[in-house]
Amino acid sequence: MHIRRSKDLVKWIFENQHKFQTVRSCSSSLRYKELEENAAQAQAEHVAPPMTAADDKPRPHITPEISFKHEDLQVRLAAPYQLNPKPEVTDLGFGKYFTDHMLKINYFKQLGGWQKPEIMPFENLSIHPASKALHYAIQLFEGLKAYRGVDDKIRLFRPDLNMERMNLAAQRSGLPTFDGDELIKCVSRLVQIDQEWVPHSETSTLYIRPTLIGTEPTFGIMAPESALLFAILSPVSAYYKTGGDGAVSIYADPNVVRAFPGGVGNRKVGSNYGPTIEATARAAKLGHHQVLWLFGPNHELTEVGAMNIFVVYVNEQGDKQLSTPPLNGLILPGVTRRSIIELASQWEDLVVKEEVITMDKVIELNKKGRLLEMFGAGTAVVISPISKVGFLDHEIHVPTMKQAQPVFQRVKDTLLAIQYGHIEHPYAKVIS
Amino acid sequence: MHIRRSKDLVKWIFENQHKFQTVRSCSSSLRYKELEENAAQAQAEHVAPPMTAADDKPRPHITPEISFKHEDLQVRLAAPYQLNPKPEVTDLGFGKYFTDHMLKINYFKQLGGWQKPEIMPFENLSIHPASKALHYAIQLFEGLKAYRGVDDKIRLFRPDLNMERMNLAAQRSGLPTFDGDELIKCVSRLVQIDQEWVPHSETSTLYIRPTLIGTEPTFGIMAPESALLFAILSPVSAYYKTGGDGAVSIYADPNVVRAFPGGVGNRKVGSNYGPTIEATARAAKLGHHQVLWLFGPNHELTEVGAMNIFVVYVNEQGDKQLSTPPLNGLILPGVTRRSIIELASQWEDLVVKEEVITMDKVIELNKKGRLLEMFGAGTAVVISPISKVGFLDHEIHVPTMKQAQPVFQRVKDTLLAIQYGHIEHPYAKVIS
Repeated sequence: MHIRRSKDLVKWIFENQHKFQTVRSCSSSLRYKELEENAAQAQAEHVAPPMTAADDKPRPHITPEISFKHEDLQVRLAAPYQLNPKPEVTDLGFGKYFTDHMLKINYFKQLGGWQKPEIMPFENLSIHPASKALHYAIQLFEGLKAYRGVDDKIRLFRPDLNMERMNLAAQRSGLPTFDGDELIKCVSRLVQIDQEWVPHSETSTLYIRPTLIGTEPTFGIMAPESALLFAILSPVSAYYKTGGDGAVSIYADPNVVRAFPGGVGNRKVGSNYGPTIEATARAAKLGHHQVLWLFGPNHELTEVGAMNIFVVYVNEQGDKQLSTPPLNGLILPGVTRRSIIELASQWEDLVVKEEVITMDKVIELNKKGRLLEMFGAGTAVVISPISKVGFLDHEIHVPTMKQAQPVFQRVKDTLLAIQYGHIEHPYAKVIS
Repeated sequence: MHIRRSKDLVKWIFENQHKFQTVRSCSSSLRYKELEENAAQAQAEHVAPPMTAADDKPRPHITPEISFKHEDLQVRLAAPYQLNPKPEVTDLGFGKYFTDHMLKINYFKQLGGWQKPEIMPFENLSIHPASKALHYAIQLFEGLKAYRGVDDKIRLFRPDLNMERMNLAAQRSGLPTFDGDELIKCVSRLVQIDQEWVPHSETSTLYIRPTLIGTEPTFGIMAPESALLFAILSPVSAYYKTGGDGAVSIYADPNVVRAFPGGVGNRKVGSNYGPTIEATARAAKLGHHQVLWLFGPNHELTEVGAMNIFVVYVNEQGDKQLSTPPLNGLILPGVTRRSIIELASQWEDLVVKEEVITMDKVIELNKKGRLLEMFGAGTAVVISPISKVGFLDHEIHVPTMKQAQPVFQRVKDTLLAIQYGHIEHPYAKVIS
């Protein structure tokens, strides 16, 4: 065939598209019917029934029948030439480098639900451009870390809490739920395979990012019939770039709102983050690291986006008090947050409380010299002391770094001791 | 080399990873520096400066220097064997089928910004699993349609308004903005190439979905330094599956909230949709098509997620009034909504108003027999009459379908007449 002019080529395509139509649409419709019959048969044989999106009751105990299973895990190792060089620990930053392998678990409602988990060489995802994850933010993630202990053993920190939260986010997003223990086992195997990526350092860790996205390629705004759960690993060091003392500065702007009653502020879904980018960039321009999200006419402190917030002050009774806002639906229920409350409650020299904290209260405590510390807490940031809060046109200088024996340091030391195996503790789970 | 045991293989990998490290990390760091220098040089030569995320002023007139350009468009046609069969019009549904080509435009801040637009065979996207679009919902989209007119010409409906809205959403999301006219030209060329996919029918159209996602593969929650703008096309018919009369039923639940002041309810970003899936599924279980999103203690009507809402009633003066809630930051500024207001304002027998409408008002008007119609309006749904509103434990039966000469029908007929070329009108833009 001779090369035709471009216009002729296009014309040729139009004409031939029509001819293909009848034949192909028949065969494709046949294939589709076969799939449906197979799925129906699979269901009749008591294979995993597909999850319904509208089920809104918390489901902490997922029965194994409706989950993927670690015992089905298939592993395909990277070829030697696919292995990536490991960066210097000093160059790590946060979430810039990724390891050699990843975990993928597909979900297809019409094929009976969850498919077999697969570990494979790290690769780009092949995603249909109409996937609901890319248009309607049907997506959620978790963040946990693998720590290399003083005994060279690798530990996770309370991974069961991440799994519980991930399942709650899945329910809220119309995505399928699963047995958290099975995912912990699959992720642990992934970490084992890439274990040399777990830094030999107590200032760095291997960050684990399980992610669940809706992959169904249709434009209806509804629960997807297909999904992909994947986990990737990234060796990380400090989350923030800070000055010499390691303290951060946060900016509270009552005109921007992160979450609201009836929304998803208490679920770790993508939709909580995209809308914060612009306000965070504005805060950065003013020299702050992050936004302190307020809510309501009283400017209640909620959280900082990448971390929960804690305040240490001298209370009315003259006692030292560690406070954090209560989980009111607007705040992400942090694993670190919960652990701090549980650990510090056992310390006799400290009153620990979940209570509403307003900006007025922070300002008043500071004026009276009773505000001692503020700090953020989260898996990514660990414990991040806060030395400054910008609020409207004033700056609140918090004497966090001026305390002789600051609470934030004690909290941090306790967490790191558990995470890096200096002490035995039920929060730490040895996986390798 | 002999096949080793699996454990040995893993061990071999660990050992060899280390050896690779020094050499590779050197060369990669060199390459990186070259790129940075090139980008710096490009900027010195007055190539497009990268956009800043924090710029929050509306920017209706984007200067061409910082945009991709239609004149750079590269076209690669699908091979004959890549062409897809066209489904029957009766089988179309909404957003289930896609055409043979797509448009892609990459943005790399370090390479000077927007790259050349490309039209290519429709294919899956290859996306890094750490892309911000998949974790932090840094993503937005538009929806417009190509109509095949009675004269066989293909028209778009006010595409400039979609481009303006897309740029506002990009600014709000820390994504790069562009010249809307250039994207209209690129999309028009895409529609021309796939023009046989524009249905020969006045009940079907070719839906155009431009989408912009953040592709930078790092875990920091901040504006991405790389992005992908793509457009895909889908032949569509009715958005809702309705009963015989074509009317839909909507459910108003004051306990769920779509948007809030300080949020992104007025921008077409993914984050507005994911959090609505669960509530929509609950409404569907109760037999409704969609959720009517309310706001505030007075249960103000805002919108319906896939459409804006209109109410027709007899006002205090005894005149027939067409009302829709004002754009208060919680409502998507619909192109169809705006067009209806503009068109109906010229009709002398109708009072047209943007006004706060509460559920109490709807109930009271209905009790007094003054509520005549309710309908939804949007590009996807066109005009969708509403015959029932579920609210708490009562059902409001709206006599929309019982009017002799309903406003919704007149609005719909006017829009379709413009869109399908029955009348000449400046809203319609002939592209082929």
